[in-house]
Amino acid sequence: MLDKATLTSATVTTPIDIRFAETDAMGVVHHAAYVVWLEMGRVGWLKAANVPYTDVVAAGFHFAVTGIQVNYRASSRFGDAIRMTTRVQKLRTRQIIFAYELHLADTKTGTETLLATATSEHICVDLTGKMAQLSSHLFDRLQAGIRQLASVK
Amino acid sequence: MLDKATLTSATVTTPIDIRFAETDAMGVVHHAAYVVWLEMGRVGWLKAANVPYTDVVAAGFHFAVTGIQVNYRASSRFGDAIRMTTRVQKLRTRQIIFAYELHLADTKTGTETLLATATSEHICVDLTGKMAQLSSHLFDRLQAGIRQLASVK
Amino acid sequence: MLDKATLTSATVTTPIDIRFAETDAMGVVHHAAYVVWLEMGRVGWLKAANVPYTDVVAAGFHFAVTGIQVNYRASSRFGDAIRMTTRVQKLRTRQIIFAYELHLADTKTGTETLLATATSEHICVDLTGKMAQLSSHLFDRLQAGIRQLASVK
Amino acid sequence: MLDKATLTSATVTTPIDIRFAETDAMGVVHHAAYVVWLEMGRVGWLKAANVPYTDVVAAGFHFAVTGIQVNYRASSRFGDAIRMTTRVQKLRTRQIIFAYELHLADTKTGTETLLATATSEHICVDLTGKMAQLSSHLFDRLQAGIRQLASVK
Repeated sequence: MLDKATLTSATVTTPIDIRFAETDAMGVVHHAAYVVWLEMGRVGWLKAANVPYTDVVAAGFHFAVTGIQVNYRASSRFGDAIRMTTRVQKLRTRQIIFAYELHLADTKTGTETLLATATSEHICVDLTGKMAQLSSHLFDRLQAGIRQLASVK
Repeated sequence: MLDKATLTSATVTTPIDIRFAETDAMGVVHHAAYVVWLEMGRVGWLKAANVPYTDVVAAGFHFAVTGIQVNYRASSRFGDAIRMTTRVQKLRTRQIIFAYELHLADTKTGTETLLATATSEHICVDLTGKMAQLSSHLFDRLQAGIRQLASVK
Repeated sequence: MLDKATLTSATVTTPIDIRFAETDAMGVVHHAAYVVWLEMGRVGWLKAANVPYTDVVAAGFHFAVTGIQVNYRASSRFGDAIRMTTRVQKLRTRQIIFAYELHLADTKTGTETLLATATSEHICVDLTGKMAQLSSHLFDRLQAGIRQLASVK
Repeated sequence: MLDKATLTSATVTTPIDIRFAETDAMGVVHHAAYVVWLEMGRVGWLKAANVPYTDVVAAGFHFAVTGIQVNYRASSRFGDAIRMTTRVQKLRTRQIIFAYELHLADTKTGTETLLATATSEHICVDLTGKMAQLSSHLFDRLQAGIRQLASVK
């Protein structure tokens, strides 16, 4: 099985361009936008791991969301540069958990501020929405993706 | 066939509660939110005409959007009361066009401000997305709905 | 101070009409839509408690979101009738926590399915986004609102 | 003044990664998502023209949307690669009109399908939302940006 160090190092970075539509009347990015960004993070992770989500669907599966936890530490604004990192926290044949960190990059000083941390929990379902077990082929590809991403670092 | 007076009077009103998530950093409702509201308007119209959209889908059809035109006259803010009216401008077996008006209600003075006017054009497609002709049963139900809504006024 | 029984019974119900735009290619409502619904729930709660959010802003405050937790138990579809209940779980001069339950109503059988449970944590900020303490006037109004809602049940 | 050939050639390309959240229960991208993409297109155009939108706001202006027209020719799905081109169709001190084309790239055959065409009309407003005239400095920067983008081609 995959140990914690491997899981932790198999991290993929996604840059986020804030859309003006994602801001709200407080002048900052609306908190619900982050939840959509997390999805972009795991889609990016899967692509980097050579298991693009379109392959997951083509194999007859979806990763249905069963839980979302977001902790917001600072606010972001239109024009800010955001760097999101995504990793797999747990992988089982019926469940996958992703963990995320979002940082605000200050391009002038080169420093970063932690914007938010988050996790998302998913169960494996078939295309009709019923709970399912990932095929061993897809499960092996995910494990191989984690190992490959970890070895790159 | 349905004459213009019948089409014009078969109008359905939908009240809209602005969501804070729909505002943007200009302090007003983001213009893309209106496009989602138009969809609520035609869904409400179909329900009032006794042809709920779930029935359209159950019969094997979708009304795919082929065109959207919105003219914005004034801006709206969180807390405003909006009154949207929807009517069918044209109905054919392969096409349906909806027209919309959005008004801002000033509850203190009892006056209204025109917020936006819009039209949306749709073609009939089957559930795989291919162009299709509405079944005569569904087409008749839509015509009957228009007549009924027009007679209520 | 307010005891737990009072907080628990000061519940406000918000019906939700699912927008077609909120569905996704899995055929169900996208999980991020629920996060926007929670905001509607607390806006509705504040209105029912006679402290509409526009009053909070007019007094110079915002309830900035610091945490969101959602547990998804079942999926919902376009056409479903959803009943969301919202209550205040904790109220302090610098923090407010809301708890939510979303149920799917089966109008034929009269039964309900638990769709999701959620909490949202907020700190009080001023209009520039800096942490602040609620004015005692606003705090008292919120406490009065909770007591009034609890007594109605 | 700028002639039509210059305006037409000052085109900026924006690639779009479809978000799963942007799909709907028809299995395709929801039409309202395109309206948000148009905004990304003009934000990208302004950046490429060296007049980033944050500079427009810093100068005390917003480009408020007064009209949106979208013609949808084909549908797109999660996983598709979209190429959006944006250009300025008209520039005046009180108004700016953008025109857009969205193409679906078939990476296997190297061919492209026209997905949608669109225009968006904007008036210049100050930060309180009142109609305003662009400062001559900002207007000159926009004209210079158009000339520079046109000369690159």
